[in-house]
Amino acid sequence: MKRIIIDMDEVMCDTMGAMVAWYEKEYGLDVDYTKMKGSWQLGFPEQHKMIIHERLFSRGFFRNLAVMDGCVEVIKQLNERYEVFIVSAAMEFPNSLNDKLDWLNEHLPFLTWRQVVFCGDKRMIEGDYMIDDHTRNLVHFKGKPYLYSTVHNAAETGYERINNWKEVAEIFL
Amino acid sequence: MKRIIIDMDEVMCDTMGAMVAWYEKEYGLDVDYTKMKGSWQLGFPEQHKMIIHERLFSRGFFRNLAVMDGCVEVIKQLNERYEVFIVSAAMEFPNSLNDKLDWLNEHLPFLTWRQVVFCGDKRMIEGDYMIDDHTRNLVHFKGKPYLYSTVHNAAETGYERINNWKEVAEIFL
Repeated sequence: MKRIIIDMDEVMCDTMGAMVAWYEKEYGLDVDYTKMKGSWQLGFPEQHKMIIHERLFSRGFFRNLAVMDGCVEVIKQLNERYEVFIVSAAMEFPNSLNDKLDWLNEHLPFLTWRQVVFCGDKRMIEGDYMIDDHTRNLVHFKGKPYLYSTVHNAAETGYERINNWKEVAEIFL
Repeated sequence: MKRIIIDMDEVMCDTMGAMVAWYEKEYGLDVDYTKMKGSWQLGFPEQHKMIIHERLFSRGFFRNLAVMDGCVEVIKQLNERYEVFIVSAAMEFPNSLNDKLDWLNEHLPFLTWRQVVFCGDKRMIEGDYMIDDHTRNLVHFKGKPYLYSTVHNAAETGYERINNWKEVAEIFL
């Protein structure tokens, strides 16, 4: 069985979307999507960057993120044909760990705790395929990497892209 | 730089020792070390197995474990010569995640969150060396495995053993 490594933020869950919606409602200011190259946090006004950072550290933020369209159904099918591991670089945000585990248990109850990995760096992760929105995670991967498209990686070249979960299904199912 | 993967429970911290001490004080009964083959939990009297299990799930249990002799000093030196990752199969016990992170921050503050991995299964972990007390974690490892000796693995054969942190230093430093 081939092993597929799947990232959470910006791949399974709409982390940026939740932060943008909260910020625009709370502060009545727009984020600048043209400044998000490399990290969506860069699109927030300078004077509020610390607030965004603090929110990432707060309990609950990662618990209520929206699921990306089609993600649950496709992973459910992948789980029957592949060895699926959900690998999230969550360690920077200690309060996200249980939120992320609870989120997975709610939305993808067919996965078990054996299939979840929380780390800081992904260079020690081995598999046949990796789907991730950060090239810093894909660059060390020895299997086939797929860049999951999102605003912050729009300018990246050099990786085969996946734009949505319909495409994940087309490639892997 | 070679990568070394180090387990936590029974390798860095005395998990079994903490449970045994608590149990014998609380219930006035001895554990049976001869029954621990494969898992130290098997050494507790049948009527109290559920209590032991619940304690593993409780918040705080993993926070106050004693550090194995020499562990901190040796990992500090390893950290200068190797790419060190602490990899703990903690995901079964959701309340252990933050306890373990806090424990690492207290005892090994020279490590960063980038060097910590919490998982359920270790088969996707890649490195040059792995030190672990469970053969189930070592069996999939493609680098060189070392079985860290503890009561539950005393009968295991087929792996090179490490008996204490002095021996870790002798092998790696």
